[in-house]
Amino acid sequence: MPTFVYDFARGSRDQADLLGGKGANLAEMTRLGLPVPPGFTITTEACRLYLASGEEPPDLGAQVSIQLDRLEERMGRRLGDPSDPLLVSVRSGARYSMPGMMETVLNIGLNDSSVEGLAAIVDDAHFAWDSYRRLIQMFGKTVLDLPGHLFEERLDKSKADAGARLDVDIPVDSLRRLVKDYKAIIRDQTGRDFPQAPREQLDLAIRAVFRSWNTDRARLYRRRERIPHDLGTAVNVQVMAFGNLGEGSGTGVAFTRDPGTGAPGVYGDYLPDAQGEDVVAGIRNTLPLTALGERDPEAYAELLDIMRRLELHYQDLCDIEFTVERGRLWMLQTRVGKRTAAAAFRIAVQLVDEGVIDMDEAVRRVTGAQLAQLMFPRFADDADHDRLARGMSASPGAAVGEAVFDSRTAVEWAASGREVILIRRETNPDDLEGMVAAAGILTSRGGKTSHAAVVARGMGKTAVCGAEDLAVDTLGRQMTTANGTVIREGEVISIDGTSGVVYRGSVPVMDSPVVQYFEEGVASALHGADEGTSDLIKAVDRIMRHADRSRRMLVRANADTAPDAARARRMGAEGIGLLRTEHMFLGDRKHYIERLILADDIEERRQALDALLPLQREDFTRVLEAMDGLPVTIRLIDPPLHEFLPDRTELAVRVALADARGEEHESDLRMLQAVNRLHEHNPMLGLRGVRLGLVLPGLFALQVRAIAEAACERHRLGGDPRAEIMIPLVGSIQELELVIDEASRVLADVAQVHGCTLHFPIGTMIELPRAAVTAGQIAEAADFFSFGTNDLTQTTWGFSRDDVEAAFFSAYLDRGVFGVSPFESIDREGVGALVRMAVDNGRAVRPKLKCGVCGEHGGDPDSVHFFDEVGLDYVSCSPFRVPVARLEAGRASLHAGAAESR
Amino acid sequence: MPTFVYDFARGSRDQADLLGGKGANLAEMTRLGLPVPPGFTITTEACRLYLASGEEPPDLGAQVSIQLDRLEERMGRRLGDPSDPLLVSVRSGARYSMPGMMETVLNIGLNDSSVEGLAAIVDDAHFAWDSYRRLIQMFGKTVLDLPGHLFEERLDKSKADAGARLDVDIPVDSLRRLVKDYKAIIRDQTGRDFPQAPREQLDLAIRAVFRSWNTDRARLYRRRERIPHDLGTAVNVQVMAFGNLGEGSGTGVAFTRDPGTGAPGVYGDYLPDAQGEDVVAGIRNTLPLTALGERDPEAYAELLDIMRRLELHYQDLCDIEFTVERGRLWMLQTRVGKRTAAAAFRIAVQLVDEGVIDMDEAVRRVTGAQLAQLMFPRFADDADHDRLARGMSASPGAAVGEAVFDSRTAVEWAASGREVILIRRETNPDDLEGMVAAAGILTSRGGKTSHAAVVARGMGKTAVCGAEDLAVDTLGRQMTTANGTVIREGEVISIDGTSGVVYRGSVPVMDSPVVQYFEEGVASALHGADEGTSDLIKAVDRIMRHADRSRRMLVRANADTAPDAARARRMGAEGIGLLRTEHMFLGDRKHYIERLILADDIEERRQALDALLPLQREDFTRVLEAMDGLPVTIRLIDPPLHEFLPDRTELAVRVALADARGEEHESDLRMLQAVNRLHEHNPMLGLRGVRLGLVLPGLFALQVRAIAEAACERHRLGGDPRAEIMIPLVGSIQELELVIDEASRVLADVAQVHGCTLHFPIGTMIELPRAAVTAGQIAEAADFFSFGTNDLTQTTWGFSRDDVEAAFFSAYLDRGVFGVSPFESIDREGVGALVRMAVDNGRAVRPKLKCGVCGEHGGDPDSVHFFDEVGLDYVSCSPFRVPVARLEAGRASLHAGAAESR
Repeated sequence: MPTFVYDFARGSRDQADLLGGKGANLAEMTRLGLPVPPGFTITTEACRLYLASGEEPPDLGAQVSIQLDRLEERMGRRLGDPSDPLLVSVRSGARYSMPGMMETVLNIGLNDSSVEGLAAIVDDAHFAWDSYRRLIQMFGKTVLDLPGHLFEERLDKSKADAGARLDVDIPVDSLRRLVKDYKAIIRDQTGRDFPQAPREQLDLAIRAVFRSWNTDRARLYRRRERIPHDLGTAVNVQVMAFGNLGEGSGTGVAFTRDPGTGAPGVYGDYLPDAQGEDVVAGIRNTLPLTALGERDPEAYAELLDIMRRLELHYQDLCDIEFTVERGRLWMLQTRVGKRTAAAAFRIAVQLVDEGVIDMDEAVRRVTGAQLAQLMFPRFADDADHDRLARGMSASPGAAVGEAVFDSRTAVEWAASGREVILIRRETNPDDLEGMVAAAGILTSRGGKTSHAAVVARGMGKTAVCGAEDLAVDTLGRQMTTANGTVIREGEVISIDGTSGVVYRGSVPVMDSPVVQYFEEGVASALHGADEGTSDLIKAVDRIMRHADRSRRMLVRANADTAPDAARARRMGAEGIGLLRTEHMFLGDRKHYIERLILADDIEERRQALDALLPLQREDFTRVLEAMDGLPVTIRLIDPPLHEFLPDRTELAVRVALADARGEEHESDLRMLQAVNRLHEHNPMLGLRGVRLGLVLPGLFALQVRAIAEAACERHRLGGDPRAEIMIPLVGSIQELELVIDEASRVLADVAQVHGCTLHFPIGTMIELPRAAVTAGQIAEAADFFSFGTNDLTQTTWGFSRDDVEAAFFSAYLDRGVFGVSPFESIDREGVGALVRMAVDNGRAVRPKLKCGVCGEHGGDPDSVHFFDEVGLDYVSCSPFRVPVARLEAGRASLHAGAAESR
Repeated sequence: MPTFVYDFARGSRDQADLLGGKGANLAEMTRLGLPVPPGFTITTEACRLYLASGEEPPDLGAQVSIQLDRLEERMGRRLGDPSDPLLVSVRSGARYSMPGMMETVLNIGLNDSSVEGLAAIVDDAHFAWDSYRRLIQMFGKTVLDLPGHLFEERLDKSKADAGARLDVDIPVDSLRRLVKDYKAIIRDQTGRDFPQAPREQLDLAIRAVFRSWNTDRARLYRRRERIPHDLGTAVNVQVMAFGNLGEGSGTGVAFTRDPGTGAPGVYGDYLPDAQGEDVVAGIRNTLPLTALGERDPEAYAELLDIMRRLELHYQDLCDIEFTVERGRLWMLQTRVGKRTAAAAFRIAVQLVDEGVIDMDEAVRRVTGAQLAQLMFPRFADDADHDRLARGMSASPGAAVGEAVFDSRTAVEWAASGREVILIRRETNPDDLEGMVAAAGILTSRGGKTSHAAVVARGMGKTAVCGAEDLAVDTLGRQMTTANGTVIREGEVISIDGTSGVVYRGSVPVMDSPVVQYFEEGVASALHGADEGTSDLIKAVDRIMRHADRSRRMLVRANADTAPDAARARRMGAEGIGLLRTEHMFLGDRKHYIERLILADDIEERRQALDALLPLQREDFTRVLEAMDGLPVTIRLIDPPLHEFLPDRTELAVRVALADARGEEHESDLRMLQAVNRLHEHNPMLGLRGVRLGLVLPGLFALQVRAIAEAACERHRLGGDPRAEIMIPLVGSIQELELVIDEASRVLADVAQVHGCTLHFPIGTMIELPRAAVTAGQIAEAADFFSFGTNDLTQTTWGFSRDDVEAAFFSAYLDRGVFGVSPFESIDREGVGALVRMAVDNGRAVRPKLKCGVCGEHGGDPDSVHFFDEVGLDYVSCSPFRVPVARLEAGRASLHAGAAESR
């Protein structure tokens, strides 16, 4: 029979799988000799067996009895003892933190007689009866599954009758009546009495915690957080410590350093004569931690000593919960503490300088997501501005604009050059255009997986969601805050997508000093910076240098112009992984492509191509100059036909109206005929990429010629141009071979004419499932693979981002189909499996095949780890994400591992 | 050193890899002791070595010398002997037949002096000089790569000068001058003389045949036919036999049975005093084979005896080429003969009845493609109709209609109820609408991979392509035949897509007797049938019965209505593999879905759903009745939203015009707003299938309820309903689990209400790459997999059939990217690899997982073999293709193997 019950003194923090996070840390503190209220942990294994069979494992009851006997012996008190009862808490504690998801029952051991004993011993009847009242209420709700409102309504009535404002103001007599009424509720609802036997209370509470693992709420949480369903939770049974036994008692929460800024020195809150629950309930204002020092210097000194020991022991910032019971300090919980992005960087290097960890570990301690947060613009100084509300930080950044309450107004105002913030109760696909037009999005409902949040993150647009204190009145075109402030359409507000705070008026936005550091170097960023910022810059600098030294993968940027290339280089890019030549024809130059697409015969097409050559040559020359000495992967043109042509419906309407009015419309009509001819039902799956290159003779040859001539020009000027030619949307080796044949002829021709040696690698995008599946064949012809994970995600899942992200991703996230949008972070099991297959099969044929990724996932932290794992040579991402990718590539090499990075 | 040269007496027909098809069969006949002109074969290995290094393998020359010496010794004549020269032919012969792709040189051994010896020996100077002229011409063109027209122009001049109509009418003196001029051409063009040394002629000819393996034409042919490029060709060197040495000589082609009808008895053509080339050139009309019997009974008797021996030896219909040289019979070639579909079936059972083969082999001898051909409607009696031309049989069937010469007219006339045949020189994507509207398509250019052919086959529309004798005048709206007949717009023509023949006027179309056999049984089909048809019906019946007995896979049909289901059952379907519930809402019932899609709130949607329930229940009850006792796989609704809504552009134009005219347009405007809201950029990748089911609450539940209630109703009436529920477009197990949860609740509810036991398997389509890649997970929840290979092909390749088939498939086939459209026959390496992966990974988790296919590939012969190979349990296809699938499934089980079936 396995051991199902571990005394705190027997476990350690390495046993989180078996004892859960809380139990393992309680054991660790006990092992360190810290003052932890004694207790024991029932293992996750016991929970799993219970959930599988619906019954407690046979030996569990006996093991609990043994531990309980020991506990009672050690404490010299017994559960339910009418004179001096031992009270225990029963708390869940799973491997991974699931805050608020599962259940807790306090004060077990109280019953009709022991409540009197407790009152006598602590000499506080109010405390004793309030404790009993709380036990019955929690027990009814948690263990017996009764609706909470039955108890709350009765409690409210009791307060009203007594004229009490707070729970604590209820007189003892009322509490006694309340207990009686609570017991009546339980009898009425369940047909049975509230159990008076403490052991029965305990056993039922343990089972309730087991069962709480499988509530809908907990299952959904795990689906979203990608926590396996088969882990189960541990149960911690611990002697109660009371901070609410008068002025010599109290409770607090503390951090070993400031988790907000990363400044050194302890940081925390203390509340005299209170229990942990009261801190959470926010009934009274907390005092700074030093208040304990003033009241009880001895307990305070002990606490500081313990915190120092814990930090050294855990080698990291710890957060703790403690209680002082009549002068005696008890540690109730510790864990490695959460912190802000800035704090993470500062603390990591502080710990290095204190000799606690090394630089490898410091790099592992920060994340790309934190670095990205530090790089968003933020509000310069928000102190003077009215806070209107706080919501969820749905999509980071800072945005300022006039409040609008419907999509149409957002579009109209934006079109006339005004900055707007779109405010909705919640968004739906109809709001899409307004979201595109707005500078930021604010909703009063929904969380991080709501429609607004998902779509905003997809667009990289600042958003605050679920600001529930705001009453949004769409028809009235205004919103009202909790304190009655009314914001009408047109009034300026500011939203902080990183903190979730909403301000009235225009808060000045400042660029991130971290971006300044990347763009201009450390000296420039330090110039005039305050101490906290200086510390942060130095920490980022040290960590980035070490990450760069440590990483295996190179980092390139996706850049289409020389200025982008130059910026990417400053951000640390080691080349261009994706230059989209069709992007060179947006805006003013659109007509070049339009003319090419609409060419009626060979001669017209030749002319259109001839006009392109000098433009392209010039473009390429500049980019190769900006990236001199570094690889530049140029993707041959992949123009979605419809993006280069007028909208078909608009054009048809215009023609019909002109026709009806007898107006001249010859050129519109001709264009409409062409647009109709070229119309595709599914442009994403249409005549694109290599298909167009093979069907439209001369197009790819022209581009290859422009690249070759640009390279010759750079050679002539003494440069070191390193072009790589990439073919888009290849599905089979035959397509690739046809293009390589054509390209090789052009390269040889240009090389001869210019007397120049041109050795360009020619490779392919892997962005179709078929390319991944047949990668073993394709590798015979390709010098390199570059994974286009955006398109690969679309075709692997069979959905287009344009069409489905807004339409159903929030529903999919809510129902747990996705943990995260597969466009944000690579879908390891599906798309990722194809990437892995292609790399493995490609390298089986060509062992040194260079493999990289140029989809947006190249800048996503979790995805970067995956790409390192499958052995890619580089990731390529937008210039702004290059530092994130560098850091995460370093972390991946340092085996931070996928699990820690998420 | 390997043996590069094999005497015909040393090889056998098993050595086709090494000796090529022709060489192996010549060896086989020699081994059988048949009168084959002696010779030897140079192996494909020698060719491969030559092509790899550009040089002959070192020992080849010496081996050729040894064989040549033996040949000369045996024949008692020597190459180039001025008194009695030995002449040889040099012919290519690869493993797989590549008709007309490679080269031949005849009469090697003639030179300025041996030509006189030949003239003397055969006592025919005209013959000798004409032979020499032919040698130089072939040599110049084939070996020296000179343009053919140089010789042809000189030949034409010679004829003109001599007043000769045919080559044979040229007088001897003119031939002598021609030879002189031909030699001058060679000297002028190459700077060297025509080689007089016979061995030099031979060696150069051998190398030329080697090189002909790699011409562009040959490479393209191989890409299209999926023949590997690295096989190389063999070279056959054989003593010349002359059929053109007077009336006692002649040449012929014969079949051991009639290859057109399959009637027993030999069949062939004979041409006295002629060479094989002359038969091909069609200069004189051939005589029936019996003419040889009348002229030379001895040679004829020998020929019949040889043909009997060959058929018994090859156990199949053989075709042969022979020459009689002054009374002596020579066999020049044999091979298993090509035959029509009807002949294939009749001959196979004749051979069984003659004890030559068994029924297993008879089933292997016919193909599903042949059966499909027999099932198309055909022209009842075309004897009385003018043949206008003959083109390629691009897409089978028979069509009659008025000639139209542009797409627009085709659309307009078809809209007014007229049947039209669209006639174009060649088609391009602009013709698509016209092709859709037409009953058939006729082009004067392009072959089986032309745009017209590819698109017509994709649509299942009759087409004849490349009828090159027709001069199509699009502007003049008419076409002219070779003999000057003019067909104007509006005149009725008939096209036979199976034979490629084009007729003037309306030829009566009759249904296939083979379809009658399948639909009504053998007795009905035999009633009143002529002998040939009776034989055919009986042959088909015997072969189908044996195929059914032999096959492992079941065959189901895709059917959406009770009449379709009943028809499928008559055609032999063993259930329904795909019932598309959205097809139940086309036509009149479209508004039900429209109302559902446009519902503004929950109540409207509930009403729309409620209206659907009785309809669906009734539909399902009828189908379950038609398929009583057999499985019916019902796919929950997968409606492409746009197909149920009006066209956006048309609607926008209507609204704009009404608006401009001040007309009432409220309802159109509301519809337009809804259509705009629901507009998808890529409907194929949009809100479809399970996504819609999860986003539109109640839709799937309604359908499951209708199925369950229908099944209860059938149970009540004593039926045996076997519904299976299938979820469309699943990409992840999470989606499937959510639907299964919902469906299970509904099934339990209906079962309880109706007191009925309902055990429906619930499975999923595998039609997205992600479903295939994660099949191991999905199999945990799915009772069965059904591969939707249409959609899987679209997403794996990333192209939509609607958009790309017409736009670039013909270019892709021409350039060899595809051997065949991946929508016609499964792409084994890409899509097929995903199918195999899904089956293997699914069964690893659930060993008895039932797997089938319901894409159109289920009725494609080659694909059926693939599905057998990967272990599917059944294929499902359209009712009409069920017999084809049954036959091919039988052939697959009998290990006909993939290679033979293509």
